Amino acid sequence: MINKLVSKIQKTNAPIVVGLDPMLHYIPKHIKEKAYAEFGETLEGAAEAIWQYNKAVVDATYDLIPAVKPQIAMYEQFGVAGVKAFQKTIDYCHEKDLVVIGDVKRGDIGSTSEAYAVGHLGKVQIGSKSYAAFNEDFATVNPYLGTDGIKPFVDVCKEEKKGIFILVKTSNPSSGEFQDRIIDGRPLYEWVGEKVAQWGAECMGDSYSYVGAVVGATYPKMGKILRDIMPKSYILVPGYGAQGGQGKDLVHFFNKDGLGAIVNSSRGIIAAYKQDKYKEMGITEENFADASRQAVLDMVDDIAGALGTK
Amino acid sequence: MINKLVSKIQKTNAPIVVGLDPMLHYIPKHIKEKAYAEFGETLEGAAEAIWQYNKAVVDATYDLIPAVKPQIAMYEQFGVAGVKAFQKTIDYCHEKDLVVIGDVKRGDIGSTSEAYAVGHLGKVQIGSKSYAAFNEDFATVNPYLGTDGIKPFVDVCKEEKKGIFILVKTSNPSSGEFQDRIIDGRPLYEWVGEKVAQWGAECMGDSYSYVGAVVGATYPKMGKILRDIMPKSYILVPGYGAQGGQGKDLVHFFNKDGLGAIVNSSRGIIAAYKQDKYKEMGITEENFADASRQAVLDMVDDIAGALGTK
Repeated sequence: MINKLVSKIQKTNAPIVVGLDPMLHYIPKHIKEKAYAEFGETLEGAAEAIWQYNKAVVDATYDLIPAVKPQIAMYEQFGVAGVKAFQKTIDYCHEKDLVVIGDVKRGDIGSTSEAYAVGHLGKVQIGSKSYAAFNEDFATVNPYLGTDGIKPFVDVCKEEKKGIFILVKTSNPSSGEFQDRIIDGRPLYEWVGEKVAQWGAECMGDSYSYVGAVVGATYPKMGKILRDIMPKSYILVPGYGAQGGQGKDLVHFFNKDGLGAIVNSSRGIIAAYKQDKYKEMGITEENFADASRQAVLDMVDDIAGALGTK
Repeated sequence: MINKLVSKIQKTNAPIVVGLDPMLHYIPKHIKEKAYAEFGETLEGAAEAIWQYNKAVVDATYDLIPAVKPQIAMYEQFGVAGVKAFQKTIDYCHEKDLVVIGDVKRGDIGSTSEAYAVGHLGKVQIGSKSYAAFNEDFATVNPYLGTDGIKPFVDVCKEEKKGIFILVKTSNPSSGEFQDRIIDGRPLYEWVGEKVAQWGAECMGDSYSYVGAVVGATYPKMGKILRDIMPKSYILVPGYGAQGGQGKDLVHFFNKDGLGAIVNSSRGIIAAYKQDKYKEMGITEENFADASRQAVLDMVDDIAGALGTK
């Protein structure tokens, strides 16, 4: 799947991923009204609204992008109905041949991590049959529990040719509280990065590993160091746009081959219609997906400008 | 909810929680056969089997115990159908007046952690209505992202009088890989423990905080130190029984008031019928829930013996 991700990035010339994080207040009124008219102001109504919203964004952008990254928290908040919408979104994105990165940040020990790995990336055995449940292509994973928590994911990745992105240095302001603490002269995130490189060496695709890392766009200097520590790991870069990361900050996350990083934007694309910039182009709330398409083009352009590949 | 947990522990005289982690190979044949006859060897069939299994274990033990801890990974592996069984299990345990600790190990940043907190512990707003989706009483949370990831949970806990247990020192063999690394003379888990105490000071119940910690039974010496660092935090202690932790190891996790810790056992209780000890009592696979009841009594006795409260 890392090979597919790389080849799709090359084909679209867009090292970006659209974060499908449908907060209710992002969703245009007409979509919510229609969903509530059908299902009421219920968990099912909200789930229908986020699904219709996602579908419209995907329809407007899928030919421009290699991948999407649904954030499962935004679905779990609506309980079982929300999780159903998560599944529906994954299945639809697969129909559109998009690579799906499940932003689930799971991580536990032994058999429990195995159950997560199986449920999100692998196949579960039920009697004589086996099923892929959520069936994402990649999942994000938390490293706090060490190798025991990661190994079951790596095993499933090898078997299914799927991948993971391990949290190394997250984009949020307080990420340094533990991640930046100095251990034997180096910050914790570097030690985690070293481990990512080790875990990743075990399962290589053609040029990059199935095991990638998450490093926030908001920390470009650390990105540069981590790029060197994990040369064969793809870096999933959140924090661009709404969180403050800019095109010029992204250069360090890429390798000299122009590959090695995929930059996420969520709000900046799926709720682009709320920005003055797109309103001034005459895009209305009803045509919100047009703003999403334009925002993808603008983001690709911003990154290409920064990388000097325009 | 921490007050309810403490009072239920006192009433039952059982500082234990039953881990409802229904692996398919734990589930007696007759339950699986019935579920598969109705729904086929499908995700729905597996979900029905784990629900029936949970129900039987809960029916056999609910009067002896204060709390249960369903591990969501074991449900997520069966996709949406599994998550439905997770919800059904929570609702049923609430009917039986059990405190429900959702072992979800979630953790993300800002609005994303908020969505998890809302979905698992709080209420989500949909138009003019609000709903508790999963509605656990406690959730386990991963601290790797720092305060940004924890604060939204703490806020929901204050509002809803619910609680969290933050991973501090996990029970698995490789937990030391990052958690034991020395920072300014002290291991990372102690720094996390300090933060747990700080976060917890903000939201106190009558005698303990809504913010607790997870510390593995397999590391009793570290438990003793962490007990002192976080005197007002309840410690959720996994790793007893199947993972190697013993009654005598648990003493250090408790405060002098005989409170402050709740010990989890999963396999040792829900799959007790597989142990020779219970087979020799004449308990058959058909009567597996009798073994679970006896295993609860034995565990309570083991801990009381160790604490000298027998």
